[in-house]
Amino acid sequence: MSNPSLLILPGDGIGPEVMAEVRKVIDWFGAKRDMAFDVSEDLVGGCAYDAHGTPLTDETMAKAQEVDAVLLGAVGGPKYDTLDFSVKPERGLLRLRKEMDLYANLRPAQCFDALADFSSLKKDVVAGLDIMIIRELTSGVYFGEPRGVFKEGNERVGINTQRYTESEIARVARSAFELARKRDNKVCSMEKANVMESGVLWRDVVQEIHDAEYPDVELSHMYADAGAMQLTRWPKQFDVIVTDNLFGDLLSDLAAMLTGSLGMLPSASLGAPMANGRPKALYEPVHGSAPDIAGTGKANPIACILSFAMALRYSFDKGDEATRLEDAVNAVLADGLRTADLLGEDGVQPVSTAEMGDAIVAKL
Amino acid sequence: MSNPSLLILPGDGIGPEVMAEVRKVIDWFGAKRDMAFDVSEDLVGGCAYDAHGTPLTDETMAKAQEVDAVLLGAVGGPKYDTLDFSVKPERGLLRLRKEMDLYANLRPAQCFDALADFSSLKKDVVAGLDIMIIRELTSGVYFGEPRGVFKEGNERVGINTQRYTESEIARVARSAFELARKRDNKVCSMEKANVMESGVLWRDVVQEIHDAEYPDVELSHMYADAGAMQLTRWPKQFDVIVTDNLFGDLLSDLAAMLTGSLGMLPSASLGAPMANGRPKALYEPVHGSAPDIAGTGKANPIACILSFAMALRYSFDKGDEATRLEDAVNAVLADGLRTADLLGEDGVQPVSTAEMGDAIVAKL
Ligand SMILES: CC(C)[C@H](C(=O)O)[C@@H](O)C(=O)O
Ligand SMILES: CC(C)[C@H](C(=O)O)[C@@H](O)C(=O)O
Repeated sequence: MSNPSLLILPGDGIGPEVMAEVRKVIDWFGAKRDMAFDVSEDLVGGCAYDAHGTPLTDETMAKAQEVDAVLLGAVGGPKYDTLDFSVKPERGLLRLRKEMDLYANLRPAQCFDALADFSSLKKDVVAGLDIMIIRELTSGVYFGEPRGVFKEGNERVGINTQRYTESEIARVARSAFELARKRDNKVCSMEKANVMESGVLWRDVVQEIHDAEYPDVELSHMYADAGAMQLTRWPKQFDVIVTDNLFGDLLSDLAAMLTGSLGMLPSASLGAPMANGRPKALYEPVHGSAPDIAGTGKANPIACILSFAMALRYSFDKGDEATRLEDAVNAVLADGLRTADLLGEDGVQPVSTAEMGDAIVAKL
Repeated sequence: MSNPSLLILPGDGIGPEVMAEVRKVIDWFGAKRDMAFDVSEDLVGGCAYDAHGTPLTDETMAKAQEVDAVLLGAVGGPKYDTLDFSVKPERGLLRLRKEMDLYANLRPAQCFDALADFSSLKKDVVAGLDIMIIRELTSGVYFGEPRGVFKEGNERVGINTQRYTESEIARVARSAFELARKRDNKVCSMEKANVMESGVLWRDVVQEIHDAEYPDVELSHMYADAGAMQLTRWPKQFDVIVTDNLFGDLLSDLAAMLTGSLGMLPSASLGAPMANGRPKALYEPVHGSAPDIAGTGKANPIACILSFAMALRYSFDKGDEATRLEDAVNAVLADGLRTADLLGEDGVQPVSTAEMGDAIVAKL
């Protein structure tokens, strides 16, 4: 049997430097756990635009469709702010999500004990926090047509379309209910059904799937604005949150920031099973490309390393190995090692991006 | 000269009980400061639906167009959750906003010194916080066409349209720049220009209005997801935030919750000047109808009372009287009086909705 294949797309900003640390981890699993991967690497985002005039070439897209999992760093940067919309770095990432049909974006918002003090929220509000946001990732206002900036009389008009089909809602709802069953069995669905018809359909379909297939899971509904409030007030009331692409973008970033551990948070974007039974999958850290600190050794590689742990769990059915890697990360934190984003406490030891990667490999 | 006119729409849930306290304040200004108002009262929301089968009758709508200012309590409640979308309580409020063309929704997020401990955020993060969110209120995905739930083949499809014209963006941008000049002269505009063309137009128009008319104001742009993060991380970095209807809905609720003073926060929704020079205006608390505590004397009337203070300032050019009222509120808080939403500290005195209203009038 051939090795499972990984496509690595480091992207822009701190992407390449955090991904270099993930490579060390991948190599370790190949050498020590007999889990070799066939790894290839390619460009996405601004660097792809610089090289090819497009943020994602057709060749790279085709490779992404063939591999068992994609690992992505981050895309974007001020250098590309003035690019035409159609070739912005983000279009590369969005094309991957759309063409691989990665409809379920899993974003755990976890507060690491060693880091609870980093949150802007009070310690009792966030300590031990562990929620999972499932964001729909292939539809909604990110992709709906018509879209664009048009001329109407003397004026420009900007248009985007929020559009959800019943089956798009149903499949991501199922992902949420399945995950809830492995956790605390609670799902809260968020939309604006009080002002948007697409939200009415969202609420109805989530309820229908619940009643027909997951009556054992506790389901509640909340307006997204109230959701933002409740996440801020008492986030531990939630277990799994399921929401659409745009609300999910804001709410998952908010939830990530609550934990104080932004540089620590991974994500998985999953689609339908491929012929080999593995889901189409892309793994990436929640943080962005942080161009301001790129190349300074200040970036925290943990979010990207934990994204690889999610790959072990969700793509390769190696939950034990994922836990091994997560434990190594926790052990290094417990030893007091901190990258620049997590300095401030007494008695910790500042380390560079590479030193953090090395320390995690050493713990493995 | 006739008295300025006020239309009072208490609405649902705790709306009527908090509005009863505002009436006391209005009466005080009539009796003691020679500022009598012609006050009329009418129905909006679920109670209007119960009485007339519509959340806002044409007669009430016509009255709202004629008065100098509208004061609204809150709308909605679980009793109305199963109503058809077109007659939901919220449609009454949205019709008022749209037909009065109240495009600039001013939502101050202020942390009251006496209440800083109520925030789920650390005290140093929120103490002294004073930001102003300007939310576009008459367009965007709340009102864009096409919209609805349609049948496509075997499936239902939910559609809403995000649509902004250049002039809609320009006028609310001007409101934000004007307000910033009276504050710390800083505006941050939020959108998702990296994924939505309507966000690209938003960003461009805000920048153009800035460069042409308000070059003295400091302007920055932020993606709305990063905005949600930054509001959570360090909200004091902001002065005025301007954003669209939907992002404004989430971000202003988030900002309100940061302060820990949700039951304290007013809002003003302003349109173009009428023949008498006053802007079309509607004032309402940021909090909702809280049906769970309606009728228990637990509601905090301060947000609604401070909404009347905003009316004094923005509709009636009585900034001094507005400050007098705001000072009275602060004095009552300094005395330790607290409604049920603000209990928990030692040494405070629990009061009912009505006692709080009386105490504020006594301080005046
Ligand atoms: C980079 C950007 C296109 C992206 C999004 O808006 O989805 C990012 O914010 C995210 O959440 O993954
Ligand atoms: C009640 C509802 C229609 C309204 C909105 O979504 O605008 C409310 O959340 C608000 O922010 O005023």
